[in-house]
Amino acid sequence: MEKQELGKTGYALNDPTAPIGVFDSGVGGLTVAREIMRQIPNERLIYFGDTARVPYGNKSKETVTKFSKQIVRFLKTQRVKAIVIACNTASAYALDEIEKELDIPIIGVVKPGARVAAEVTKNKKVGVIATAGTIQSRIYTDYIQGIQKDIQVIGKACPLFVPLVEEGLLEDPVTDEIATRYLNELKDIDIDTLILGCTHYPLIRSTLGRIMGESVTLVNPAYETARELKELLAGEGLLNPSTKRLGTNQYQFFVSDGADKFKTFANSILKYGILSAQIIHIEEY
Amino acid sequence: MEKQELGKTGYALNDPTAPIGVFDSGVGGLTVAREIMRQIPNERLIYFGDTARVPYGNKSKETVTKFSKQIVRFLKTQRVKAIVIACNTASAYALDEIEKELDIPIIGVVKPGARVAAEVTKNKKVGVIATAGTIQSRIYTDYIQGIQKDIQVIGKACPLFVPLVEEGLLEDPVTDEIATRYLNELKDIDIDTLILGCTHYPLIRSTLGRIMGESVTLVNPAYETARELKELLAGEGLLNPSTKRLGTNQYQFFVSDGADKFKTFANSILKYGILSAQIIHIEEY
Repeated sequence: MEKQELGKTGYALNDPTAPIGVFDSGVGGLTVAREIMRQIPNERLIYFGDTARVPYGNKSKETVTKFSKQIVRFLKTQRVKAIVIACNTASAYALDEIEKELDIPIIGVVKPGARVAAEVTKNKKVGVIATAGTIQSRIYTDYIQGIQKDIQVIGKACPLFVPLVEEGLLEDPVTDEIATRYLNELKDIDIDTLILGCTHYPLIRSTLGRIMGESVTLVNPAYETARELKELLAGEGLLNPSTKRLGTNQYQFFVSDGADKFKTFANSILKYGILSAQIIHIEEY
Repeated sequence: MEKQELGKTGYALNDPTAPIGVFDSGVGGLTVAREIMRQIPNERLIYFGDTARVPYGNKSKETVTKFSKQIVRFLKTQRVKAIVIACNTASAYALDEIEKELDIPIIGVVKPGARVAAEVTKNKKVGVIATAGTIQSRIYTDYIQGIQKDIQVIGKACPLFVPLVEEGLLEDPVTDEIATRYLNELKDIDIDTLILGCTHYPLIRSTLGRIMGESVTLVNPAYETARELKELLAGEGLLNPSTKRLGTNQYQFFVSDGADKFKTFANSILKYGILSAQIIHIEEY
């Protein structure tokens, strides 16, 4: 029994057929879930979006950590085999503290994005656009400079991008104008790599790419996170070996508020139709 | 004892020297608090801003009501003599339900604003700009048409105004452009009265006034709410009779997150300096 529970990975739950837990402050993490679905299509996912308390980006470390711990406790009740923090702010503020206490593997979106940026930059000038919280935490700077000390990392908080994306202004003169203001100083510094450090930003990727120009590589942490997750699960013997169809329950969605609104947004991002999202009283976990 | 507790007002707490409780989802309600301070300068205030869970404007009725009830329970621990819901969304969704259960007077910002709009409109076309939640609730429409059935009420949700105000873009071409888009249909309908149905909007009053033109009367519910509060307290014998200086504790501020950030914003809105804001774990109430 003990062997089965602690298994060869050293993790308490060592069941490759169990789902992966993915969480975000709201809908942004769906861009990460979408990448996981694409890169490891044989996995089951439990997604939680904290729509009652969204956004996290301008809230304190203490509050974001408290919220994240409640969500991790909820995901554990769903017997997930691993957890992905699909939110940059929560990854920046809460990952290290949660990791210490957790008995299953957990990854955030920050480290995978930072690693790729450190690899691809040639002129050693990397820009990071993100929420105020992520920028204030200096986590991208610390992590990139931990890999290579002489890389200059320039962070820029872009608080209006999330509301603009959520309003659907993905291709719009107003989004262009705001993006131009935010990105100007990064252009002036002549960065060659730009990390999209908030899960909403890939949805305005074409606007950001046009303003920065072709010489700047855009790094989407969602893609890198899904790749690292796959490697991590493979390394631990936790990839789902089953090849039988997983059925309609393969992907399950939970939110803390506004299930219908979430469903509508999710269906605009994901390829297949979400049938339902279930409301959870997350503050009780 | 019973007499003292239930007193002549019929309310459980009948102490004119007790403070007034004022709450909002965050900082917006400070525009209401400011009006109360101006119109009844002799009153003590306890302000609570739910900065950990802000915004309320696009969250569901159930969630906003749950949050509002927790805040009312907190304010009651502070022994307030009356409560002002200084948030349109919470007033729209939660006031009626809370009022039924509460043993002290409570008012929201919606009814005072609606009453004045019904009085001042001449062509019987009133516009309301507010959050998605307030517009969806149709509370302004219901209330105005309850006063005068033949007034046409046209609601317009303006979800980008709050983030633009919180970013400080009070006088900015982007705010102009977004406001022009939101207000165009109200201009086309030829309204003569516009209710600023969100406590953030008075901060961009000059932009809104310029776009609507001089022929349109802007109604600021903050002003009307403070006026009705004064009347209500006077009618119940609950106005503070004391003329002695109330000292530095006259106004006390509580938030659920980011006390320093709140203090900075509050000091930009209020005339006098806020010394501190205290953090409360509001979900425990």
